[in-house]
Amino acid sequence: MNDNFLRACRGEPVDFTPVWLKRQAGRYLPEFMAIHSKTDFLTMCRTPELAAAVTIQPVDILGVDAAIIFSDITTTVVPMGLELEYSDRTGPYYPHPITSRADIDRLRVPDPDDDGLDFVYDAIRICAGELANRVPLIGFAGAPLAMASFMVEGAMSRDYARLRRMIFGDRPAFLQLMDKITAHTTNYLRAQAHAGAQALMLFDSFAGILSPQDFDQLNLPYIERLCAELADTGVPLIYFGLGAHGSLAKLGNCGADVISIDYGLRLDTAIKKLGNGVSVQGNLDPFVLFQSATEIEQRVRETLLQGKAARGHVFNLGHGVMPGTPVDHVKAMVDAVHAHGVA
Amino acid sequence: MNDNFLRACRGEPVDFTPVWLKRQAGRYLPEFMAIHSKTDFLTMCRTPELAAAVTIQPVDILGVDAAIIFSDITTTVVPMGLELEYSDRTGPYYPHPITSRADIDRLRVPDPDDDGLDFVYDAIRICAGELANRVPLIGFAGAPLAMASFMVEGAMSRDYARLRRMIFGDRPAFLQLMDKITAHTTNYLRAQAHAGAQALMLFDSFAGILSPQDFDQLNLPYIERLCAELADTGVPLIYFGLGAHGSLAKLGNCGADVISIDYGLRLDTAIKKLGNGVSVQGNLDPFVLFQSATEIEQRVRETLLQGKAARGHVFNLGHGVMPGTPVDHVKAMVDAVHAHGVA
Repeated sequence: MNDNFLRACRGEPVDFTPVWLKRQAGRYLPEFMAIHSKTDFLTMCRTPELAAAVTIQPVDILGVDAAIIFSDITTTVVPMGLELEYSDRTGPYYPHPITSRADIDRLRVPDPDDDGLDFVYDAIRICAGELANRVPLIGFAGAPLAMASFMVEGAMSRDYARLRRMIFGDRPAFLQLMDKITAHTTNYLRAQAHAGAQALMLFDSFAGILSPQDFDQLNLPYIERLCAELADTGVPLIYFGLGAHGSLAKLGNCGADVISIDYGLRLDTAIKKLGNGVSVQGNLDPFVLFQSATEIEQRVRETLLQGKAARGHVFNLGHGVMPGTPVDHVKAMVDAVHAHGVA
Repeated sequence: MNDNFLRACRGEPVDFTPVWLKRQAGRYLPEFMAIHSKTDFLTMCRTPELAAAVTIQPVDILGVDAAIIFSDITTTVVPMGLELEYSDRTGPYYPHPITSRADIDRLRVPDPDDDGLDFVYDAIRICAGELANRVPLIGFAGAPLAMASFMVEGAMSRDYARLRRMIFGDRPAFLQLMDKITAHTTNYLRAQAHAGAQALMLFDSFAGILSPQDFDQLNLPYIERLCAELADTGVPLIYFGLGAHGSLAKLGNCGADVISIDYGLRLDTAIKKLGNGVSVQGNLDPFVLFQSATEIEQRVRETLLQGKAARGHVFNLGHGVMPGTPVDHVKAMVDAVHAHGVA
């Protein structure tokens, strides 16, 4: 197996810098749309054969060095007691979001042996089997703060006002919510590792809504707890905190093996702040893929150069691939990483 | 006049740390809603007497040390050739956003002597007159990148995908758009100073959508140009680049007198990066105002302590006051700044 991805995560020597892309299984791929055109989004997530098929597509099409299971972070907390629906305008949403302490009291931490998320574990089993001799498979979940945001706002939010009012206006409610989500997320990620995921990634998609002081006090402890609890799975843990630029020094010691860096700061700056105890992943602006192949190659080389300072570097975007991104430009990026990312 | 605000902007000695709040004239104030309940948002912006009335309210009610003219950044570019409408769901929006090179070619840079924005200048004249013996008045505009985003997206956007595709997919179009907006914004801010604004602020509300490298190359030159062109007005220039954490060292030399800092990084960290050539403004998370008066006071003291490292500190929030914020909490914040922010 091409295990350069796992080696880079652990800071071990690699043959070349491994690369994959956030949202590499997505709408920009005609092969993805061929499946999606026949099936709605949530059914794709919940049908192991379909989820497995789109998970593997980018490995075949792009030649990336890791696959990430096709799923959506919103599906994870449904067994806690939330309904999930899908709207073409807003994407997945919870029609009955959390609005009160009573709602939080009612949330369940599902039994790990019967959590209603077998569709994810089954998809992982299929993928892990099919990919066994090729590239590693990444499992993932939304970080507790990201899930708390979705659960309180009901959907993607512009200003996260409901969640932030709870954080500052009803602190005990917020902490209770984070506690329950963390317990469930720990079980969910552990089960993904048991099903065959060879690395686990936490998406803290709204980490930047907290000031560094509040991030350190109100969010970091839950990330540290997750990493500590999952250490015995033996698989690399990757943390992506979008916008959490003020807490990188602390994140370098949170227990994750890899910190994924958004495009909001230079990769070499991030590495300096993180220290040498972790590897990094990132951090090309996904919109650079709308430039020419020559310009993309130049940006890839600059990012690779910056990444050399880290103990390990997994090349990736600073955020997800955008719909409409030309597939040949994505291939040009992957090829440029493989051409120039030699030790 | 209480000119502590102007002195802090210029790095001169102050009697106490001056304070005002972004969006201090807003929905959280019952006195604002008393006027707004009888008038739609855009009419409020375009009626000098109403705009002046709500501009002065927070000076009377809160005891802040500066007023900022009530207006909306979306109104500025209407004379360039955009229609502006208002929706209760999304706020101000352009029903015919910029979609092509031809649209950009058609944009006008209005004659400064007849730019259709007299309602702003008239409001400033009224306010400046009424405030003359009390506190300074701040004029403002959206920064070119913020306006380019609104003009291309048509409204507030979640991912700024249309603008970012233009930035990376049609660079000449983007630069032409930025150039025209900058020319008009320069005239607009200069006219505000001539009408009586005693400081000018640039809101770069989406500055964080660019990586530091792209910010420095594609956005910073327009900020520098604006600051250079406006230097002869003699009034302090304030730049607020939300999320532009990676470019602070350069922003410390962009020509602005004050850099306004969002709550995404510590104020003392920001000051270290900016150097001592500028004053700072910021940076309390507006949601802290949902905490108790005691907790607010504690956070105010921490922020004041961090601000001491700067050549001058204007206390402010890291973003705008949220609707629903208790007015007595805002007062508690202002009082705490005045109680503890002594030289």
